[in-house]
Amino acid sequence: MAKSSSQLEFEIIRRYFANPNLSFKRDGIELGIGDDAALIDVPANKHLAMSMDVLISGIHFPADADPALIANRSLAVNLSDLAAMAAQPYCFTLGLVLPDSDETWLQKFSEGLASLARQYNCPLVGGDTSRGPLSISLQVQGLVDRSQASRRSAANRGDKIYVSGNLGDGAVALLALGLDSHLGSSFSFGAQSLSDQDRQYFSDAYFKPQPQLELAAAAGKLFSSCIDISDGLQGDLGHILAASSLAATINIDALPYSMPCQRCMDTENRIVAALFGGDDYQLCFTVPEGDCAELERLARDIGVKVSCIGEIVSGEGVAYLDTDGAPVDFSARAYQHFASVQSA
Amino acid sequence: MAKSSSQLEFEIIRRYFANPNLSFKRDGIELGIGDDAALIDVPANKHLAMSMDVLISGIHFPADADPALIANRSLAVNLSDLAAMAAQPYCFTLGLVLPDSDETWLQKFSEGLASLARQYNCPLVGGDTSRGPLSISLQVQGLVDRSQASRRSAANRGDKIYVSGNLGDGAVALLALGLDSHLGSSFSFGAQSLSDQDRQYFSDAYFKPQPQLELAAAAGKLFSSCIDISDGLQGDLGHILAASSLAATINIDALPYSMPCQRCMDTENRIVAALFGGDDYQLCFTVPEGDCAELERLARDIGVKVSCIGEIVSGEGVAYLDTDGAPVDFSARAYQHFASVQSA
Repeated sequence: MAKSSSQLEFEIIRRYFANPNLSFKRDGIELGIGDDAALIDVPANKHLAMSMDVLISGIHFPADADPALIANRSLAVNLSDLAAMAAQPYCFTLGLVLPDSDETWLQKFSEGLASLARQYNCPLVGGDTSRGPLSISLQVQGLVDRSQASRRSAANRGDKIYVSGNLGDGAVALLALGLDSHLGSSFSFGAQSLSDQDRQYFSDAYFKPQPQLELAAAAGKLFSSCIDISDGLQGDLGHILAASSLAATINIDALPYSMPCQRCMDTENRIVAALFGGDDYQLCFTVPEGDCAELERLARDIGVKVSCIGEIVSGEGVAYLDTDGAPVDFSARAYQHFASVQSA
Repeated sequence: MAKSSSQLEFEIIRRYFANPNLSFKRDGIELGIGDDAALIDVPANKHLAMSMDVLISGIHFPADADPALIANRSLAVNLSDLAAMAAQPYCFTLGLVLPDSDETWLQKFSEGLASLARQYNCPLVGGDTSRGPLSISLQVQGLVDRSQASRRSAANRGDKIYVSGNLGDGAVALLALGLDSHLGSSFSFGAQSLSDQDRQYFSDAYFKPQPQLELAAAAGKLFSSCIDISDGLQGDLGHILAASSLAATINIDALPYSMPCQRCMDTENRIVAALFGGDDYQLCFTVPEGDCAELERLARDIGVKVSCIGEIVSGEGVAYLDTDGAPVDFSARAYQHFASVQSA
């Protein structure tokens, strides 16, 4: 047992984290790294939104991945949680556990963090480091207008259901990177036939998910509810439905897929990837029908793809329909298995 | 590699953490566990103080320790950081990494957290859980009057230096609990002759450190600077001196010790424990000379022991004096070693 701090820890913090590249100044950050606590201001008309994620080596990222990519993914998935509340990034804290003080690793990790932190004007303001099995705890703080936080619980009957971007890329990325997937043998794609370009696309999808903060900033005021898709559309939409005590119909043919996703999978596998795969970090949100034209205009203006995939209805659970409105038979293949596991 | 959430995770969160015993309501906590982010308010006249600690099994606590005690220590050491800013607890978030979902462990851990959280009206508002090697990331949020945060950098020449409580207990506790200490062979105490009562005293000192929040609330407005003593007085006072570009003289005979500490160690070992041991979680703070009588009165009123141990002076580093003002010879025994390691 060792005490909690050491000269080595102070040195690591000073060199790689308490530098102006990462713990840069920002209005409202009264005091950053270097005291017992950080001090921040929160404007009177805002809520502070806070979200913490813990990423474990070998579970949430491969131990030997590029440290800059690990850093990028760690911060990006947390920023995605802010986007899901229609909050904008403010600052973050980092708990870094390292087996040893590998300076090359620390340098790359720190630069990867700084790059995304600067992109979103979201400085590092504090945290802790320790010796131990590699893991990354990261808490982002965001600001959101008091009246505009998009909670899971506020969907209304008749609202249209949208998703940003494309679905299913995260599920393919796991396998394309040679990682385990919980989807198991019921899910497959043409791994052998992936072009180098498509392989890179999926690697980027995994390590550089794009938190939909711009969409949240432009159109968050129109969201009645929102969640980010980390566990697959079925599970995450399910959280909105449960919190709002409502149900949904989803037009299965309206689910959006990337070209690489379409190239490497048949329709059934794409549906499995979208509904049960996860790791997509897109937003699933609901919009009152009267605001849908405005939502689509705002999204077009900022060049963000949004797709209307269904509607909030009375009842419980999710019903999947084809384009003609006929129920899709989910007794087939993998659906049954995943549906029962996920919606238990 | 698995995806980030699972039914098991949701179930753990729901049962052990998202319960009214731990994630209880508090004014200003707009939204707690159960959405993509927590939402909190910060009053216009307050700063939000944030401090994160990561505790690793086998480093910061013994793996087989009582989970309630692990929980207590994890939250208490973080609350101590708030006390050091003269901030009061508001809410906290938890990143819990567990090798398996041991329900007995989780129940005790959750109850231990809840007990301290309720004592300080500091509810759990969010976090993350994952499978992996046991570790605990905990971030506390506190509130402090905008003008009254006690930073390390604001000590002034002529200020008196105080510590709360007693020093050295943490260093003895490590050894009394059979844990490793960085103090090594140069430090010893009468482990064999400890009474059961004294052994329990040191165990409590380790697992139930008392964050000096009451002192901070009552008298924090008189602190010109403050830090909590997690690494030993020499190192932590050193942070105040470095941040304030000043030096200190310490009356070595004025350092306060508990009766159990006095019973089991000679003077020299006590000094090593106080200056270089750490894990005491007392406050070291500076007070303008004209406010010292008021400080001592306020501390007496709430029954908290404070000891004036020295003075802020010009220059660099710490000079140790005996009661007659003569320099203490630090070339003897262990001092030299620790002084050179810690003040590097």
